This record gives sequence, C-alpha cells and structure tokens, in this order.
Amino acid sequence: MKTGLLFVVSAPSGTGKTTLIEQLVKRVPDLVMSRSYTSRPRRPGETDGADYNFVSKARFEQMIGAGEFLEWVNIFGHLYGTSAVDIERHRLTGRDVFLVIDVKGARQIRQREIALIGIFVLPPSFKVLEDRLRRRSGDYETEVQLRGRLDTAREEVAASCDYDYIVVNDSIDTCVDRISSITVAERARVRAMGTISEAIAETFRRA
Amino acid sequence: MKTGLLFVVSAPSGTGKTTLIEQLVKRVPDLVMSRSYTSRPRRPGETDGADYNFVSKARFEQMIGAGEFLEWVNIFGHLYGTSAVDIERHRLTGRDVFLVIDVKGARQIRQREIALIGIFVLPPSFKVLEDRLRRRSGDYETEVQLRGRLDTAREEVAASCDYDYIVVNDSIDTCVDRISSITVAERARVRAMGTISEAIAETFRRA
Repeated sequence: MKTGLLFVVSAPSGTGKTTLIEQLVKRVPDLVMSRSYTSRPRRPGETDGADYNFVSKARFEQMIGAGEFLEWVNIFGHLYGTSAVDIERHRLTGRDVFLVIDVKGARQIRQREIALIGIFVLPPSFKVLEDRLRRRSGDYETEVQLRGRLDTAREEVAASCDYDYIVVNDSIDTCVDRISSITVAERARVRAMGTISEAIAETFRRA
Repeated sequence: MKTGLLFVVSAPSGTGKTTLIEQLVKRVPDLVMSRSYTSRPRRPGETDGADYNFVSKARFEQMIGAGEFLEWVNIFGHLYGTSAVDIERHRLTGRDVFLVIDVKGARQIRQREIALIGIFVLPPSFKVLEDRLRRRSGDYETEVQLRGRLDTAREEVAASCDYDYIVVNDSIDTCVDRISSITVAERARVRAMGTISEAIAETFRRA
C-alpha cells in the first residue's frame, strides 16, 4: 500500500479555504481533511471536530510534550496545532490528506523537510476579501482590528510564492474543480508513485 | 501575454495517444496539438495535416538545414520531426501546445533543456496492447514484425520514468479527464505563472 500524499492549503482569512476543502473531500474519493487542534474557546456556530478539535490548554501542552504536533503556534495566547499522529494514521491507509493551515504553519512543516504539495488560494480581489471580512466581523471587531486583518492578509499573499500552486476562489465550484484537478494530477505524478517499476507492475496487474 | 506551456505525450504505439490528445484539445480551451512532419508516404486512411504533415524527403532535408526542427529522427529511412517554428507560433499567442512524439524525440527535446511537461500513457496491460497492435497490423505485418513492435513497446515503457506523469488509457474518456486535470494543474503551478507578483497583480486586476 502506497502512503498518501500531503496537501497543504493556505489562504488569507476570509478566502473561504475551509469550505473549499470540505466540498473537495466530498467529491474526490480517498481524500481526507485533517482538522487542527486549538486551545482557544469555541466561537458561536463552531463545531468540535469540524471547525477545530477543541482541547484545553493543559491537554494541548501535554500533546506538545508528547511530540504529537507537526507544527503548532501561539496566536494571542491561544494554541493552534496540526496533529502528526492524525495525519500519519490517514496516510498509512493510502488516503491523501488535506491540511488547511496558515502560512506560518506551512513554513514550519516545510522546514521539517516533510514532502508536501502546497496550494495557495487567492480571493478574486482584495476588495472582495475586504467585503467578506467586513461582513464576517460584524459587530465583534473594530475598524482597527479589521485593518490589522487586511494587513495580515497582504503579508500572507506575499508568501504564496512558497507554494506549488495558486488557485483563485472566484466561484466555489470552479475553485473546487481546480483543486480536484491538482489532486488528480499529483496522483499521476511519477514521483508520487514510489518506484516506477512498482507503478508499472501495478498498472499491468489491472488487466 | 504569458508564453504557453509545452506538453510532450509519449506512449507505446497502439496505446491510442493521438486519439486522446485529439479529444483533449476539443475539450480544453487554449490548447493546440502540434503535428509532426514526416517524409514517409501517407498510409491508407491517413490525412495530411491531421496524422502528420507529409512532406517530400527533399523538403524535409531543407527544413533540417534551416534549423526548423526541435527534434527529428530517421526511422527505417523515413524522417520524422517536430517543428520548432509551429510550436513557438502557438505558444507566443498564449496557447499551450501538446506534442505527441516517441520517447527518443522527447529525449532530444529534454537534452536541449527546453522546459516541458512529460506525460507517459500506458495501456491497461501488455495483453491489451498486443491485441490492439495485432488488430491494427492486419495483413500488413508478419508475426516477426509484430514481435519487434512489442519489444519496442517494452523498451518505451522503461523510459516512462523520465516523464512527469503516468496515466493509464483504460477508457478514453477517463484518460482524457486525467490529462485534462494535469493541464489545469500545470496552469495553476506557481512556476508556470512567470513571476509571482505578476500572477497576483493579474488576479487582483480581475475584480
């Protein structure tokens, strides 16, 4: 059994990356989305195991100690991390794993020299992103906080050159199509096939 | 205007590679298939400009002299070649070009360090390939000639490790889907986008 591929998807917040990958895993067989862990409190409307795996700060720190995270980060006192254990469990069954993480998390994984396929999702324009963030923030945020988010988004877009692919989320369906194509293509990559002779042997066994 | 990508498709003879790419260019926008030139006589059922561009040996040699070929080869006294001029003309209009050529031709292009995306098409099994070749050869070929073709096919499959992608032609539609996905993915590749800032500027102009 071949080990699954690791896809890492990043995008400025408000680009709709999580929705995209949720749609994708419904459409493409043998794909799974691995959810991050966080110690921050659940927000209204968020579901445990879907938006994040919500754990206490004590439990999160225990998991850090046990080396369970591929990467983790402290954002304004809240911990966020990607479970290496979850990912390996999926990959060993031959399924390809999608991670939706921020550019810093992706950088940490790359620094560990773990082979990954990076996909960066762009909003159709900065104006669209601003509108989405403005709508989403509602009454929770001040204009200063929103400006801060937009500045962060600009910095994140600058990191897109570290990714293998860039796709634009102009419409969810079209964008899911593009990411689905990337998945199909990466599965057909010679380097994804282990040794060539193995790939060919497998192919020729099909008949 | 961005220069088009160059895709090179090879497969053992009898794998149906030409049919696949003919279907593909009908389905995917801004793709064009560049036809090879040959000095060999047209066979019954072949069309000039579709199967090959048929030219006289004198004309072919003239084209070699003028440096018009990206690669050319002499097979049993017949000349076959890929026109660099045709390809550049297509690519400069921003269209991506598909070449269907044999492994030797692909190797020549690679040696010239021309950036290409290689796709190798495998038959579902060697048995299927043998049946197809047997059907196609009809009364024209002896068993010895057919054996020779099968030996060549085996050698060609061994060269598949030099390609970026391997796809199996188990059904034409499914295989065209796969190659179409590869095209979409390659167009989304960061390195296919020229400079990143250019790609992002282009994206953000869309709004």
